[in-house]
Amino acid sequence: MTPEALLQDKACEIPASDDGLAETFDAWTRDTVRRTEHALAALLPTSDTLPARLHEALRYAALGGGKRIRPLLCQAAGALAEASPDALDATSAAIEMIHAYSLVHDDLPAMDDDDLRRGKPTVHVAYDEATAILVGDALQAQAFFTLSELPLPAERRIALVRELAEAAGSRQLVGGQAIDLQSAGRSLSQPALEQMHRMKTGALIRAAVRMGALCGAADSPANAGVYRALDDYSSAIGLAFQVVDDILDAIADTATLGKTAGKDAYDDKPTCVSMLGLEASRALAAELRERAHAALAPFGPRARRLGQLADVVIHRAH
Amino acid sequence: MTPEALLQDKACEIPASDDGLAETFDAWTRDTVRRTEHALAALLPTSDTLPARLHEALRYAALGGGKRIRPLLCQAAGALAEASPDALDATSAAIEMIHAYSLVHDDLPAMDDDDLRRGKPTVHVAYDEATAILVGDALQAQAFFTLSELPLPAERRIALVRELAEAAGSRQLVGGQAIDLQSAGRSLSQPALEQMHRMKTGALIRAAVRMGALCGAADSPANAGVYRALDDYSSAIGLAFQVVDDILDAIADTATLGKTAGKDAYDDKPTCVSMLGLEASRALAAELRERAHAALAPFGPRARRLGQLADVVIHRAH
Repeated sequence: MTPEALLQDKACEIPASDDGLAETFDAWTRDTVRRTEHALAALLPTSDTLPARLHEALRYAALGGGKRIRPLLCQAAGALAEASPDALDATSAAIEMIHAYSLVHDDLPAMDDDDLRRGKPTVHVAYDEATAILVGDALQAQAFFTLSELPLPAERRIALVRELAEAAGSRQLVGGQAIDLQSAGRSLSQPALEQMHRMKTGALIRAAVRMGALCGAADSPANAGVYRALDDYSSAIGLAFQVVDDILDAIADTATLGKTAGKDAYDDKPTCVSMLGLEASRALAAELRERAHAALAPFGPRARRLGQLADVVIHRAH
Repeated sequence: MTPEALLQDKACEIPASDDGLAETFDAWTRDTVRRTEHALAALLPTSDTLPARLHEALRYAALGGGKRIRPLLCQAAGALAEASPDALDATSAAIEMIHAYSLVHDDLPAMDDDDLRRGKPTVHVAYDEATAILVGDALQAQAFFTLSELPLPAERRIALVRELAEAAGSRQLVGGQAIDLQSAGRSLSQPALEQMHRMKTGALIRAAVRMGALCGAADSPANAGVYRALDDYSSAIGLAFQVVDDILDAIADTATLGKTAGKDAYDDKPTCVSMLGLEASRALAAELRERAHAALAPFGPRARRLGQLADVVIHRAH
C-alpha cells in the first residue's frame, strides 16, 4: 500500500467542503514554518562562533528541514490563547531544539544507528559521533536558555521551562526512547506499546500544545477547562502521530520518508502495524483523529488550525 | 612527584595558624556533601520508576561519589548572600546533575573513552552506551526541571535557569569539550588552552558560585560589586581547578585519582603540564589561589568558606 492509498482511506478523508480554509491553511503553514526557521537561525549561535565546527554541525542539525509539526501546534494553540507572535516564535524554536537534539542522539550508532534524516546524512555521518553527541547536548541547553529569555513575565517563563523539562526528561521523551531500544526483539502488550509512544513522541507534542497556550492566557483555575480540552486533543494526536509513523515505516519508501524505511521490521521492533496489523492501525489513527476533533468542539471555529493540524498528522505521507 | 609532595609545595602552603576553623571546615564540608547527596537522591526519580534500568543507571551516575566541589562552592556563596538552605540544596543538586551528565558523556567511547570514574566503572561500561547517552540527556533535563520548582520567586528561578543553561551550552561547557577533543595531537597557545579550560571547567564552577549568590541577595545594581568580586574569585579557581587536574593527571596514580591517570599524555592532549612544565604549572596554581583570596578580601571573615574552598581546589590530591 502506498501513502497515496492511505490518503484515500475513507475513514481518514479530508472534508471535501472547502470554503477557502484549505488555501489559507497552506499559507499559514508556510508562514509559520518560515517564522520558526527564522527564529531558530537567529537564536542558535552563528557558525563562526568558537568552536566553529560544533556550531556549524548544530545549525546543520536544527535548520533547513523537518515538518515543524510541533511549532505548528504551538503556534495554533497560542493563537487560540491570544499569545504574542514573538513569544510563540521563540517558544516554538525552543521545542524544535529539543526535538532536533533527540533525533541527533536517536540516530547515533549506539542507538538506532541511522544514516539518513530529513533526506540528509545524519549528524554523526556528516560530522562524527563525538560532534553529534555534543550537538545534541548543546541544543538541549540552548532550548532552556531560549525560554529563559522569552519576552514574557517570569512566572510564565518558568512555567514553560517546567513544562519542557518534564516532557524532555527520563519519565517522558528520554524514557520512551529507552523503552523503544529495550523492546527490540520482544513483544509488548498494546497498552505498553501505547505507553511507550506516549512517552517517546506524545509528550513533546502535548508540551508543544500546552506551551503555546501557556504563552497566552494564564494558567489560572478559570482556564482549567481549556487546558483539559487541549490535553485531550494533544494526547490523541500525539499517539496518532506515532501510529501513522509506524504505518508509513511499513508502507512507504526511503525517498518519500527522508529516513530509512522498513527500519522497525529490520530492527525487529514491536510497532502498531506488527501488533495490530495495517487495517486496525489505520482504524486506530482514524479514531484518534475523531477524538482530537471532539476535544476541540467547544472552541468552535477559533480552533480550526488545530483541527486542520490533526488532519495533517493523520494524512501525512512522510 | 606525588600528590603529597605537591601538598608540601611552599607556594601552595595551607596557613599553619589554625584557630579551630580547619575542623569546622571539615564538619561543614561533610555536612554539605551529605545534604547534596540527600537532595540528589530525593530529586532524581526512584530506581523503580519506569523505565527502571534507565533510572537505576541515572542514580548510579549521579549518586554516591564525587568531590561535590560545585555544591560546596554554591553553598558557600549562598551563605555569603544569606540564601535559604533549601533553595541552595536543590540548586546545588541541579548543578551536580549537569556536572554528572557531562562526565557520563565525556567518558563515552566516541569521546574520551574512559572506563573508570570516581573509582567505579563508567556508565557505558556498567550498563551500555545507549543507556549512558540517555542518562546524560535525562540528567540535563532533570537539572532544569529542578530549578523550575525551587522554593524561590519566579524571577529568581528563571535567572538561575538562564545562568545554568548558558554555562552548560555550546559557548561554554559543551564547546570546551569540543575544543578539548579537537586538540588531541595538536599544540595550543597558552591563551587558547586557558580559554578551553575556562569553557570546559571554569564556566560551571563560576555558575555554581553565581547561582549560590542568586539564591540569596537579589541581582540588583547595588549588588553588582558582590557579583564582580565573586566572578573574579570563581574565574580564578575555575582555571586553577583545571591546572591542578592537569598536574594530578601527570603525577598521580589511577587508584588515587579514581579515574585513569596519565590519560592526557596517552591521548596526546595539550595540558598545562605539557605546555608549561610542572614547576610553572604549580606556580600558576599558586598565583590563581592568591587571586581568588584577593577577590574575597572585601568580604572579610564572612567569605572564609570560599577562601577555604580555594585552598581545597589547589591542594586536592584527586
